[in-house]
Amino acid sequence: MSRGLLIVLSGPSGVGKGTVCSQLRQRQSDLVYSVSATTRLPRHGEIDGINYFFKTREQFQDMIARDALLEHAEYVGNYYGTPRDFVERTLETGKDIILEIEVQGALKVKEKFAEGVFIFLVPPSLDELKHRITCRGTENADVIDHRMTVAVEEMSLISYYDYAVVNDQIDAACHRIQSIITAEHCRKDRFIAELASMQEASEKA
Amino acid sequence: MSRGLLIVLSGPSGVGKGTVCSQLRQRQSDLVYSVSATTRLPRHGEIDGINYFFKTREQFQDMIARDALLEHAEYVGNYYGTPRDFVERTLETGKDIILEIEVQGALKVKEKFAEGVFIFLVPPSLDELKHRITCRGTENADVIDHRMTVAVEEMSLISYYDYAVVNDQIDAACHRIQSIITAEHCRKDRFIAELASMQEASEKA
Repeated sequence: MSRGLLIVLSGPSGVGKGTVCSQLRQRQSDLVYSVSATTRLPRHGEIDGINYFFKTREQFQDMIARDALLEHAEYVGNYYGTPRDFVERTLETGKDIILEIEVQGALKVKEKFAEGVFIFLVPPSLDELKHRITCRGTENADVIDHRMTVAVEEMSLISYYDYAVVNDQIDAACHRIQSIITAEHCRKDRFIAELASMQEASEKA
Repeated sequence: MSRGLLIVLSGPSGVGKGTVCSQLRQRQSDLVYSVSATTRLPRHGEIDGINYFFKTREQFQDMIARDALLEHAEYVGNYYGTPRDFVERTLETGKDIILEIEVQGALKVKEKFAEGVFIFLVPPSLDELKHRITCRGTENADVIDHRMTVAVEEMSLISYYDYAVVNDQIDAACHRIQSIITAEHCRKDRFIAELASMQEASEKA
């Protein structure tokens, strides 16, 4: 059986990662969502292993010590991270797994999991990004300016990714990402590896 | 405007390159077909510049001397080749161009045009390939054995290609190739190059 792919979907804050990711999962029901580990308490209705893997601070620190996370970060006093084990087990079953993550986190994942497919979601324009950030909430001008500065800085990190997908329309963006997944499955290296394991299996038989 | 892609579709004799290529062009009407140059005489109904660029032997040899062909070969006393100029002019208009070619020819194209996207069409199995070669015509067992030997040798050249697409079903194979084309347009290098030329244009304005 052919191993699955880790798809890392990233991009600046406000670009629409979450919307694109949930649309993709609706279109492609066999695409597994990478579940994060966190030390924050479950909210009403959240289920352990579905929304998050809920951990104590000690458990989380132990995972860090065992290098059991592809990346982690602390945010407002709580840890968040990507358990390596869940990703590995999913890939072994031949399924693809998608990880939606901010730009810095994706680069950390790349250090530990270079064979992932790194997709950068790009706003149609910086004006449009500002519009989206502004529409999101009630933040004041300073907060919006700061977010825009960060977003522009993050845009320069696109060179560490494999693909740039413009999120002009959700349907079009999803179609491009699905095409990337299909194409990556056709890369000749994967085919040659499969061929070798098939030959090995037939020689043993 | 973004430059088009040269898609090189190859694979062993009998794998179904021609059928897949014409199906692709039906599905994607903006995909330009790379027209070959040849010294053989036009057959009834063939149009210069549509089916082939018909050339005299002198004209063809002059094209070889001027390095005006991405590859060429002699077959049953006639020259056949891929004019570089036609490919380049198409790419400049932003359109993708597909070149259907046998395995050795594709490798020659790669030497002169490494930025092409090289796709190797793979038979579902060697048994199936033998079946297709056998069904094609009235060849005797020796001819079929020879073709199979060549096909197996050609399969080993897959490592020089970018993608391997299994031609199990025409529709599925076409879908994979279209996905590869879409994905290649999303490669971050292309995006960064476009971004740079957009910035240049806006600075000049």
